[in-house]
Amino acid sequence: MIKSGIIAIAYETVQLGSGELPLLTPMSEVAGRMAVQEGAKYLEKVYGGSGILLGGVPGVLPAEVLIIGGGVVGTNAARMAAGLAAHVTLLDLSLDRLRYLSDVLPPNVDLLYSNRHNLLEQLRKADLVIGAVLLPGAKAPKLVRREDLKLMKPGSVIVDVAVDQGGCIETSKPTTHESPVYVVDGIIHYAVANMPGGVPRTSTLALTNATFPYAKRLARSGWKQACRDDPALFQGLNVIEGSVVYPAVAESFGLSLVNARQLV
Amino acid sequence: MIKSGIIAIAYETVQLGSGELPLLTPMSEVAGRMAVQEGAKYLEKVYGGSGILLGGVPGVLPAEVLIIGGGVVGTNAARMAAGLAAHVTLLDLSLDRLRYLSDVLPPNVDLLYSNRHNLLEQLRKADLVIGAVLLPGAKAPKLVRREDLKLMKPGSVIVDVAVDQGGCIETSKPTTHESPVYVVDGIIHYAVANMPGGVPRTSTLALTNATFPYAKRLARSGWKQACRDDPALFQGLNVIEGSVVYPAVAESFGLSLVNARQLV
Amino acid sequence: MIKSGIIAIAYETVQLGSGELPLLTPMSEVAGRMAVQEGAKYLEKVYGGSGILLGGVPGVLPAEVLIIGGGVVGTNAARMAAGLAAHVTLLDLSLDRLRYLSDVLPPNVDLLYSNRHNLLEQLRKADLVIGAVLLPGAKAPKLVRREDLKLMKPGSVIVDVAVDQGGCIETSKPTTHESPVYVVDGIIHYAVANMPGGVPRTSTLALTNATFPYAKRLARSGWKQACRDDPALFQGLNVIEGSVVYPAVAESFGLSLVNARQLV
Amino acid sequence: MIKSGIIAIAYETVQLGSGELPLLTPMSEVAGRMAVQEGAKYLEKVYGGSGILLGGVPGVLPAEVLIIGGGVVGTNAARMAAGLAAHVTLLDLSLDRLRYLSDVLPPNVDLLYSNRHNLLEQLRKADLVIGAVLLPGAKAPKLVRREDLKLMKPGSVIVDVAVDQGGCIETSKPTTHESPVYVVDGIIHYAVANMPGGVPRTSTLALTNATFPYAKRLARSGWKQACRDDPALFQGLNVIEGSVVYPAVAESFGLSLVNARQLV
Amino acid sequence: MIKSGIIAIAYETVQLGSGELPLLTPMSEVAGRMAVQEGAKYLEKVYGGSGILLGGVPGVLPAEVLIIGGGVVGTNAARMAAGLAAHVTLLDLSLDRLRYLSDVLPPNVDLLYSNRHNLLEQLRKADLVIGAVLLPGAKAPKLVRREDLKLMKPGSVIVDVAVDQGGCIETSKPTTHESPVYVVDGIIHYAVANMPGGVPRTSTLALTNATFPYAKRLARSGWKQACRDDPALFQGLNVIEGSVVYPAVAESFGLSLVNARQLV
Amino acid sequence: MIKSGIIAIAYETVQLGSGELPLLTPMSEVAGRMAVQEGAKYLEKVYGGSGILLGGVPGVLPAEVLIIGGGVVGTNAARMAAGLAAHVTLLDLSLDRLRYLSDVLPPNVDLLYSNRHNLLEQLRKADLVIGAVLLPGAKAPKLVRREDLKLMKPGSVIVDVAVDQGGCIETSKPTTHESPVYVVDGIIHYAVANMPGGVPRTSTLALTNATFPYAKRLARSGWKQACRDDPALFQGLNVIEGSVVYPAVAESFGLSLVNARQLV
Repeated sequence: MIKSGIIAIAYETVQLGSGELPLLTPMSEVAGRMAVQEGAKYLEKVYGGSGILLGGVPGVLPAEVLIIGGGVVGTNAARMAAGLAAHVTLLDLSLDRLRYLSDVLPPNVDLLYSNRHNLLEQLRKADLVIGAVLLPGAKAPKLVRREDLKLMKPGSVIVDVAVDQGGCIETSKPTTHESPVYVVDGIIHYAVANMPGGVPRTSTLALTNATFPYAKRLARSGWKQACRDDPALFQGLNVIEGSVVYPAVAESFGLSLVNARQLV
Repeated sequence: MIKSGIIAIAYETVQLGSGELPLLTPMSEVAGRMAVQEGAKYLEKVYGGSGILLGGVPGVLPAEVLIIGGGVVGTNAARMAAGLAAHVTLLDLSLDRLRYLSDVLPPNVDLLYSNRHNLLEQLRKADLVIGAVLLPGAKAPKLVRREDLKLMKPGSVIVDVAVDQGGCIETSKPTTHESPVYVVDGIIHYAVANMPGGVPRTSTLALTNATFPYAKRLARSGWKQACRDDPALFQGLNVIEGSVVYPAVAESFGLSLVNARQLV
Repeated sequence: MIKSGIIAIAYETVQLGSGELPLLTPMSEVAGRMAVQEGAKYLEKVYGGSGILLGGVPGVLPAEVLIIGGGVVGTNAARMAAGLAAHVTLLDLSLDRLRYLSDVLPPNVDLLYSNRHNLLEQLRKADLVIGAVLLPGAKAPKLVRREDLKLMKPGSVIVDVAVDQGGCIETSKPTTHESPVYVVDGIIHYAVANMPGGVPRTSTLALTNATFPYAKRLARSGWKQACRDDPALFQGLNVIEGSVVYPAVAESFGLSLVNARQLV
Repeated sequence: MIKSGIIAIAYETVQLGSGELPLLTPMSEVAGRMAVQEGAKYLEKVYGGSGILLGGVPGVLPAEVLIIGGGVVGTNAARMAAGLAAHVTLLDLSLDRLRYLSDVLPPNVDLLYSNRHNLLEQLRKADLVIGAVLLPGAKAPKLVRREDLKLMKPGSVIVDVAVDQGGCIETSKPTTHESPVYVVDGIIHYAVANMPGGVPRTSTLALTNATFPYAKRLARSGWKQACRDDPALFQGLNVIEGSVVYPAVAESFGLSLVNARQLV
Repeated sequence: MIKSGIIAIAYETVQLGSGELPLLTPMSEVAGRMAVQEGAKYLEKVYGGSGILLGGVPGVLPAEVLIIGGGVVGTNAARMAAGLAAHVTLLDLSLDRLRYLSDVLPPNVDLLYSNRHNLLEQLRKADLVIGAVLLPGAKAPKLVRREDLKLMKPGSVIVDVAVDQGGCIETSKPTTHESPVYVVDGIIHYAVANMPGGVPRTSTLALTNATFPYAKRLARSGWKQACRDDPALFQGLNVIEGSVVYPAVAESFGLSLVNARQLV
Repeated sequence: MIKSGIIAIAYETVQLGSGELPLLTPMSEVAGRMAVQEGAKYLEKVYGGSGILLGGVPGVLPAEVLIIGGGVVGTNAARMAAGLAAHVTLLDLSLDRLRYLSDVLPPNVDLLYSNRHNLLEQLRKADLVIGAVLLPGAKAPKLVRREDLKLMKPGSVIVDVAVDQGGCIETSKPTTHESPVYVVDGIIHYAVANMPGGVPRTSTLALTNATFPYAKRLARSGWKQACRDDPALFQGLNVIEGSVVYPAVAESFGLSLVNARQLV
């Protein structure tokens, strides 16, 4: 890339003042929604699951779905799990976020303050756990530890959506769509690193919607003016005509770093 | 069974005056609900599906789900697909049934009178088709013909819940949980004959709930009195102390038929 | 009454062919709805309750409400408890009823088949139990036994709406609006025999709505013709010009019984 | 006005820092809600419409309503159209807005990213199009061009709520409540410039609610202090004791402009 | 018709055992839903209405809609009016019907027992009254009398859907789509006799759905056998090869009546 | 406290930049939800109430609940009252707040702009009034005056949640859980100063959720650094090692005030 002399702007480093990564948000939406259909699937007996149907049927209780994190991923997951008639508990640290979610989520989602006590109590009951804790620009914290798996019912399923940021479940490691699951201590782990890649038609459209305004701005104003006008785009600059300008990239590859301000 | 001298009552022949098979209804509920999660799964690219997410995301349209039949299977499927935020169209022949469903289903389910014109028009748009036409005590009609598959978009999915009654899709043939899908003319077919077997924990509880009152009646009154008191149970009698009393069974195996009335 | 020579028709013996007591149904609706507000109230600490708020708040789990019976009382109670954002489990023996309720109740009501195993499991979790099992024309069965109270959490509340038919909780005995509760084994019992009497304005209107068509029929056709035309009204006859015609009344008071058919 | 020596503050120039015109917002709410009832009406055959009922009936598909713009007008229109059981698609450029709308609108509203490709695809299907794109302080962009009308089904209806800002439909021109519609290329156009004037009782109350706090502030502090304290009110100043202080007004009438800061 | 020798079966006399006229039911659905959009329209000032918007806006109360009758027409009207965010009160004589409606209608519909006291009280508040009382095979009762109009607010609107059966409003007389309204005592009356004719595309599809099974039966079995097999169809016979067989028709035209049984 | 030398931070003075008191918000949530169950209870005849059931029953209109204020208390109260099927009217001064509430509250809540005219009109109809106007850091305004009570129906109930800030009802004075109500001019007043104390289990959990992050911050950084880092916590400081640093406290007790900035 350095040799090619191009201007390289990375999807995952375009960043708003709020810390949001606007080009990744649609992927979180897709992954959150997919997480529930993956979980439902791997609860089937043929995959070693406990053989429980998320929504039950009239006369039989629904499954318990535990969602750790109420951001974009968790909220989308909660809505889908509730839509399949499961009983959902969503954990989050922000009371303000829980209050908003209580305004807009259906009543079969319980909203619980996240702490270790509540987490362990919920793990005991959960049939499906969705790890949805992602910190922008940081490794996800390991909220569920290996020893916690012993509390869970055998044949339960964990979907760790945070796996491409290291995972929020200690025992999760990245898998692929071709071989998506493995078992640790009787618990099925689904941890596909690129979940949205499973539904490329939806994901591409979602991504294009988010990217298009930036592309239009670059095309209209030229890259330099566009990056001056839009701090989020400026944040996205990685390489400018042979100079590495993104600190983490320079550091990772042992290259010298140039201050982007000098080139834009 | 004949040699053993037992009294054999078959689940699938216990029948109410209305024609309903009360011990199979819970299995239809489970299968209808599962149909949607199977369909969602096999729409993924890795299985050859069109790579579309049922509910889309904000900014991207949801998938189109077509459900053929508004009985127990179809209604349960519609509710789950709507819960996953898909756009659902349900076809049925009974206006009274459609009117009731319009009272109780969410507004992203469109209720359409079933005829060949409407069916073909919907097949063109559908990403997921759920065959849910079951006639009690008869083979399901082949509503979707082989040539109709050409109207559908490649990578779409058909789940034929009626497959264990012959299927309501001409190209469906029974598969297993181990090898659940195959492709005809670019369309993925899921046609597991015993779908509820995939979630045995839920299915067993559901089945037991339905069976229990009959078991209690048999235990309290003895089989003879119980079958006299309850016409549904009487209908369920297949073999009585060596005599075959259910016409279809006698015919299938070339055995002589005894009139159950003479023995009860 | 005998001396007065009047024609006496009793509210509680007017009965439809289906067994329904149409003049009592509105009272069941009122009692079912009131049961939840009573339960919510007596869970407060000042009355000895466990001090839990039915709906919790965002970040704190809601209370568990267990409703035994899915008839008029239980359904009305379930709707109110769900409306207060509690987590509700409703037990009933009829799968057909549970299926209908799953169509029309909100998703924070779980519908569970009623058997002793399920009942005991739910009692362990329940903060509020509403006894809503009434058999038309018979004493309510004692579904919750004295020893079962030990499974419950101290400070929990039982509201036995069936108490005026003997109660479906072994430890319940009729109380009054003036002194509505008492404690057994640490569990608060609310068992006011005439619950609708607490909200007479609503109850009177509800009762009048149900009574009016019968009154009109009597006024228009005269009592004799009206009772001939309407079997429900005929069932309601207790005393006709000095003769007792309702078997249970004659038996209770040791009076001779006259066949109503001879007098109408 | 200049001669009168009054202090003139214009409703439509009182403006918040966010760009919102708080005294016009209620009118947008009214217009958005009315747009759907106008559209429903002019779809009737007697007005030349295609004769389709917005919500269909059980067995017949609902109409397709396309709403261009997800601001105040569009959101209110979407809610009403969904309430009439139509199938609604709403286009907007802001993904954040679409995400919020997906939290609060009913599921028969599909939320689609706005671009020309999506717009044309939706125009082909639409029975009713509601133009709801208004840019504060600027002419509405002409999103639907004359040639696009050819894609639409004859007898379809366009309601252009933006018409008093020039309209977001190329073929729309202001009409009146007395003569509200005209036809271009087989498409019925409703483009009443002052829609809220049709329901003056509701509109006056809505407007008064929004105006009252400003009136109170003026009455309490006097106009000068009130305009110093509240930048929105300051923005609203047009004429001060004979001097024109609002640039656009001065320019339109060729009058000299005085800087309001000098007079307040 | 008599001369032509045809077999004439009339839509409006095909009748189920329950009294329902299955070929008219779809028309009632259409008319009930249309009634609300007509009412909303004629409340506009330009038509002499009170200028109130059905749903109000945040900060302004919604209009009051009174629906007399909870059958097919009234229920469909209630759903649409509630969908437009009005406050709806629906009157009906059947408590069982009101109970079902309370299960399936949204909470901004109040369900009130119908009697003259309640009717008058509601008329005082109503902005829009929808007359939806139709008795199968009989003239609609005149529930709203001329003197009652004085209780209503000037500029309010009455839509009498029952007008083609004589109307349930004393002052209503049939109008046409071309000239749909007139004013009595300050109240706007909309009383188009053939409301579904306004949306022929939807109505034709709805009607065809209902008619098709009968047409198929006639085509398959021949008219004679079909009328023998299906009592509803038999009821529909009016003229058989020159003989009038429907009593009301014979009576109206002074023709001799032949017993259909002799000819089928 | 001064003598003890401790660092005292008061719950009720920890304050965000927005003016919100984050440690009191959970108490407002609890009180708002409780207010409805208290009101429902004291409407019972045995307490002198009008004997009306909040939700009515099918055939009988629901009660009218008036909620003054759409903040945390009022919104929670509205949701509960709507959940009990009452007809709710909520008054607030902020149109923006009413718009958001119209997005998320159920349709049996009417949202009305707050002014004296609307208030008096609603008081005439109300069966239950919930006073929910709290101004952070100021006495609540007396919106309902003593003479207004005469407009209300005898036996109606007022719950003044604002009573511990002086109350927003002129006739309210603090009561206790042991003796919670009194009557003025025929209107029952419930004005328990510490409502959340009635459900300590829920309240303690809610409070702990809100307090925990502050406690963690204090424990991790020490009080001084924590108060430097977090302006909300700094605001909470009342006494530092013998010096009073909170103006209102110093003033109330006639103590000298030290500027906290000098000690932190």
